[in-house]
Amino acid sequence: MQILKDRIKKDGKIREGNVLKVDSFLNHQMDIALFAQIGQELKRRFADETITKILTIEASGIGIACIVAQYFEVPVVFAKKNKTKNIAGDVYTSSVESYTHGRSYDIMVSKEFLSADDNVLIIDDFLANGSALLGLAALVEHAGARLVGAGIVIEKGFQPGGQMLREKGLRIESLAIVDAMGPDGIVFR
Amino acid sequence: MQILKDRIKKDGKIREGNVLKVDSFLNHQMDIALFAQIGQELKRRFADETITKILTIEASGIGIACIVAQYFEVPVVFAKKNKTKNIAGDVYTSSVESYTHGRSYDIMVSKEFLSADDNVLIIDDFLANGSALLGLAALVEHAGARLVGAGIVIEKGFQPGGQMLREKGLRIESLAIVDAMGPDGIVFR
Repeated sequence: MQILKDRIKKDGKIREGNVLKVDSFLNHQMDIALFAQIGQELKRRFADETITKILTIEASGIGIACIVAQYFEVPVVFAKKNKTKNIAGDVYTSSVESYTHGRSYDIMVSKEFLSADDNVLIIDDFLANGSALLGLAALVEHAGARLVGAGIVIEKGFQPGGQMLREKGLRIESLAIVDAMGPDGIVFR
Repeated sequence: MQILKDRIKKDGKIREGNVLKVDSFLNHQMDIALFAQIGQELKRRFADETITKILTIEASGIGIACIVAQYFEVPVVFAKKNKTKNIAGDVYTSSVESYTHGRSYDIMVSKEFLSADDNVLIIDDFLANGSALLGLAALVEHAGARLVGAGIVIEKGFQPGGQMLREKGLRIESLAIVDAMGPDGIVFR
């Protein structure tokens, strides 16, 4: 998606530890007009599919997922990272290994909101090692729902998540795949 | 907003400790079509104001804020609850007392994304004791920005936040104000 790649080149900042900082438009400040274009593009790519629900993970996936959902006309469910008082009763859980924070954490979705009748599209801002996506896919599997695929804004193609999950048969549509980044800038696939 | 009140009556669940559970459409599963109606209504109420930025807090405010922002055609910034590697450099911080979790926590926004030129509308799903809203208002003040007001989906009118903040001069537009809830159901103002 050229407009996204141009934006990453213009406003993305490369930081130590292979961090690509895009918090001026994607995951801290959010450019809603860009999100609408992301939604249109993901709708185009998944136009052949029946989708009944969009699943994402707090926090930075939520905004993108909600704008994208307008083009599919389906509800969004977000997986929570911490059990709060407001989730009573039965939940599906899975575990996510966080490379950013150096620990793993549980994610959960109420059983009320994912069922065997659902055709689920996962939406997230980043795909790197694939652990969040694996955790979300496990929630879908626990629910007996069908996982249609994943729509990702930025995939770090030099990290193993994308290849690992595609080899498992998951359909992943990444709107920008970064194959390398360094002093000479960002190289897209 | 009648359609919202009807939805709360239909799908809201009253739980121990004055918890109003609306996670089937507002803050776990999210009804994006309803969010669009919320956005239209808030745009109508704040039509007389210049707004340059919407500020919310993770996680459950983000989805609503992003849909609402489409009607104001401005970016969204969400305050983060935990400092992560991805926020480098200078941030505005404030403290929020959480009654749900029985402790206080810091919230922060990068200084890059709130400035003295901004006219800020705060969006959140709930207003009860007002501590999240106070914390967000403090971030706006630290930035030297103008706080236009707050658009709230559900205000618990029997808790002190709304009155306390209106007495401080904050313009609060709550789309549904719950004055009582109990065995006989929900009473709206």
